[in-house]
Amino acid sequence: MNQELLLQLFIDKPGEYVSGENISQELGVSRTAIWKHIRKLEAAGYQFEASRRLGYRLLSIPDMLSVVKLENQLQGNIFGQHIHYFETVESTQNLARAAAEEGALEGTLFVAEQQVKGRGRMGRGWISPRGKGIWMSMVLRPSVPIHFAPQLTLLTAVALCRSLKRLTGLPIGIKWPNDLLIEGKKISGILLESAAEDERLRYVIAGIGISVNLEEADYPAELLEKATSLRISGQQKWSREEVIADFLKEWEQLYFLYQEQGFSPIVTLWEALSVSLGKTVRLTTPQGELVGIPIGLEESGAIRIQLEDGSIKPVFSAEMGEPL
Amino acid sequence: MNQELLLQLFIDKPGEYVSGENISQELGVSRTAIWKHIRKLEAAGYQFEASRRLGYRLLSIPDMLSVVKLENQLQGNIFGQHIHYFETVESTQNLARAAAEEGALEGTLFVAEQQVKGRGRMGRGWISPRGKGIWMSMVLRPSVPIHFAPQLTLLTAVALCRSLKRLTGLPIGIKWPNDLLIEGKKISGILLESAAEDERLRYVIAGIGISVNLEEADYPAELLEKATSLRISGQQKWSREEVIADFLKEWEQLYFLYQEQGFSPIVTLWEALSVSLGKTVRLTTPQGELVGIPIGLEESGAIRIQLEDGSIKPVFSAEMGEPL
Repeated sequence: MNQELLLQLFIDKPGEYVSGENISQELGVSRTAIWKHIRKLEAAGYQFEASRRLGYRLLSIPDMLSVVKLENQLQGNIFGQHIHYFETVESTQNLARAAAEEGALEGTLFVAEQQVKGRGRMGRGWISPRGKGIWMSMVLRPSVPIHFAPQLTLLTAVALCRSLKRLTGLPIGIKWPNDLLIEGKKISGILLESAAEDERLRYVIAGIGISVNLEEADYPAELLEKATSLRISGQQKWSREEVIADFLKEWEQLYFLYQEQGFSPIVTLWEALSVSLGKTVRLTTPQGELVGIPIGLEESGAIRIQLEDGSIKPVFSAEMGEPL
Repeated sequence: MNQELLLQLFIDKPGEYVSGENISQELGVSRTAIWKHIRKLEAAGYQFEASRRLGYRLLSIPDMLSVVKLENQLQGNIFGQHIHYFETVESTQNLARAAAEEGALEGTLFVAEQQVKGRGRMGRGWISPRGKGIWMSMVLRPSVPIHFAPQLTLLTAVALCRSLKRLTGLPIGIKWPNDLLIEGKKISGILLESAAEDERLRYVIAGIGISVNLEEADYPAELLEKATSLRISGQQKWSREEVIADFLKEWEQLYFLYQEQGFSPIVTLWEALSVSLGKTVRLTTPQGELVGIPIGLEESGAIRIQLEDGSIKPVFSAEMGEPL
């Protein structure tokens, strides 16, 4: 039996019960077969109400990404010309990496409704429930030496922050290097994985997770202290296609600006959006802990930390704690 | 039949013929079986002379790397504590990369007698015939940000150049960034592949190919213009175990020096060994061609090029041509 046809019967009669007998006649299948297909649709996110007397009624259809809608919004953009869309994956990052090794073009995008092994920074997990967020990875082949890879991390944070602020009006800021926060709670994760041969970047995979329409029930209780979604903070749902398309346009503009004019315009934009500057923080670096005040970005992507003795130290890599 | 036992019969009577009848009786196998095993030994690099009347005589045994000998020479060294030795592989680089993804420790070494898909810079091939060279890759987990990865390429060239010069007395120099040359001909290839997550290096695979005992017949004719081996240039064979062990000791010393004191002592050593400085060359960069005189290394690993107008430009990534 064609599941699409079964679904169409319900979509044609919004809110109404369709009796099993009716379906059975229309599609020429047994009542047991219908029941099995309803189960499958439920597993894919459709919600039904079943009544022994009246039959089945479609309550809600899952919020699925429309690749067609997304492609329409991305006409003229290089990023998003090749979209690979998946229902469920382990991690879009791993798919994109494998594709890049096989020669995937710059701008190729991997998007999934759900990740079962979503990855965050430093091997941490990343919650990626079905249909509620944007879990995607894109292939970059920037013509800059490995040296400049950390600049791309900061550029990505700037592009995403500018796009989300504009779309939602929410007070989103960047915590160094690339966390986006609303009132101290994390709204998004960015992870750039680079592969280089000597001083040449072979490719970079930019992984982007955006908690768009997650509800409080989607988070473990202890995470609600540190994480939020656009929906929780903005008290409305957002079109994921629109969020992706707007981000990709912003990203592409900044990426071209960067390739033409270098990192300094990005530094200016980053500093304007940063919530990390001017407050005393503790930094955990591979060389040990230090306390100081972040005062700006360096060209290299390092953050300039003013220490207690007034000296300034560039920090390339660290975990930054809450303001002290 | 045990091939080792067959071999032992010959090794016990160096230079002498062993008759088929004799072998047949000793090992209880047919003449055909003996012939098949001799063929297998020949395929593995053993050379025999066959006489219908006298039997077989062992002419030479292949030059196989002795891991035990190597381990003895590397006592107290971290690099080389875990040696994975292979007869034939596609590429030691790919093996090391897969192992690093699975968590292999710093200093883990992959060595092969032969590579059938040896890789050089920029996807080029690398000739790696059986038993004649050193084809190896090592896993590094340096505690420096991605930023500094190109410094490791230069450090590796310095370590290899110092070690090979000392061992062989040959006039070996470094062409930027990491080719080792004897009188303009390439003696070795170095390829560092990095994997990073944001600004953190996850691991680096250092691939090292050294043309130790290759003969002219091992090279395609057109390559002999640009390539040589320690044997061709020095007119003698060298112990590969000794070459590997000496390099790994030198490498480890410089690597620790680098982690303690930073890149500046390495710059001094590199500049002293370089054959690239002071001569006008053409550089092909991703941004186009330029002509100038290399005058030194920067802290970043970039080479400083003095242009015709006297200005100085750091070049991060380029192919450097012959002196003009």
